[in-house]
Amino acid sequence: MENITKVWLGPLPADSPYVQPHRMYYVQNGVEKNWDLLKVHDSVAIILFNTTRQKLVLVKQFRPAVYHGVITTELGSFDKADLKAFPPAIGVTLELCAGIVDKSKSWSEIAREEVLEECGYDVNVDRIEQVMVYRSGVGSSGAKQAMYYCEVTDADKANSGGGVEDEMIEVVELSLAEAKRMVQQGAVNNSPPSCLMGLMWFLANKAPVEQTTA
Amino acid sequence: MENITKVWLGPLPADSPYVQPHRMYYVQNGVEKNWDLLKVHDSVAIILFNTTRQKLVLVKQFRPAVYHGVITTELGSFDKADLKAFPPAIGVTLELCAGIVDKSKSWSEIAREEVLEECGYDVNVDRIEQVMVYRSGVGSSGAKQAMYYCEVTDADKANSGGGVEDEMIEVVELSLAEAKRMVQQGAVNNSPPSCLMGLMWFLANKAPVEQTTA
Repeated sequence: MENITKVWLGPLPADSPYVQPHRMYYVQNGVEKNWDLLKVHDSVAIILFNTTRQKLVLVKQFRPAVYHGVITTELGSFDKADLKAFPPAIGVTLELCAGIVDKSKSWSEIAREEVLEECGYDVNVDRIEQVMVYRSGVGSSGAKQAMYYCEVTDADKANSGGGVEDEMIEVVELSLAEAKRMVQQGAVNNSPPSCLMGLMWFLANKAPVEQTTA
Repeated sequence: MENITKVWLGPLPADSPYVQPHRMYYVQNGVEKNWDLLKVHDSVAIILFNTTRQKLVLVKQFRPAVYHGVITTELGSFDKADLKAFPPAIGVTLELCAGIVDKSKSWSEIAREEVLEECGYDVNVDRIEQVMVYRSGVGSSGAKQAMYYCEVTDADKANSGGGVEDEMIEVVELSLAEAKRMVQQGAVNNSPPSCLMGLMWFLANKAPVEQTTA
């Protein structure tokens, strides 16, 4: 699904709207120290459960940062990727529906929009329940993420999802048994810890008990 | 415990050994796209359970990236932090014992060293069991983290932990009931999703059942 034919790297422009790197200096216990860090956007993620189909709704997409991470874990660095040695599929992730907070709307309204744009369900904002707020990348970015839970039905389906403009996002439905296997096996499909944590939270708190062993 | 008296920011030096920012260009479905991302170090994290004391062993520390993240979520940006408005305690996290992979040793050996340096337990590498491997920061860094599980006893205690050189790390013991409350409440104490996921994994797979309701 990723259909990628060329990948190359350039320097980060100073005016990047997405990533702002800094060195922080601080005096701790009388000693001057420093730490390299980045401001990246805060974000929302939504655990989406279709009660009509008894399926969790996740998204699959090519993630440039993961593709870069996989290659550089092996090689150290690259300028132009060798697509034969490193097929783009290694950068595809299975994740919760999610999006960055980059507009002056409420966080739950942004969550609502992502559910519609990525997964195609049109729900009212009051159906979106906040689960928890945390900071990820504590060693590098400390970005805030709010996690939400939303139940949808087939009747809420307004479009096929897949993202806006030229986004290429595949909507994936997981049975509860599949979700259970996924959190037991760990991060197959490059799923990030927030996704696995969200699935564990759902299984512990929301899943119909009789379904998880199906 | 953080004892911080001054915090200010400067530009990220191009030769940072910790953070390397890039813009990735790629052609997907015939359309040229780009994505801003960062190479940060891969890392290890260890779920540590002291069977003598029936306690999980975690660490508490000031995290510059979290402190920066909390302030900039509020203010957008800053050059010099106002420690009255934003006390450094807001940047203190409660996490699993963890460390970056920045030397040519096996990942489990690096995990062993972090357990000794941060928490003071001297264990053989064959007592460290791999739980799962995943990539975090899928939108920005895609760094690899391997999560391990290790049981220790009071007899393994070799020093008081707290980190090496001028690191200021506090070792914290959690009862199983406290850990259970923590994953129910979500990320109090700035705990990242990987830590919460590790605790959920422990409670589901390793915790003595009779203890978790204590």
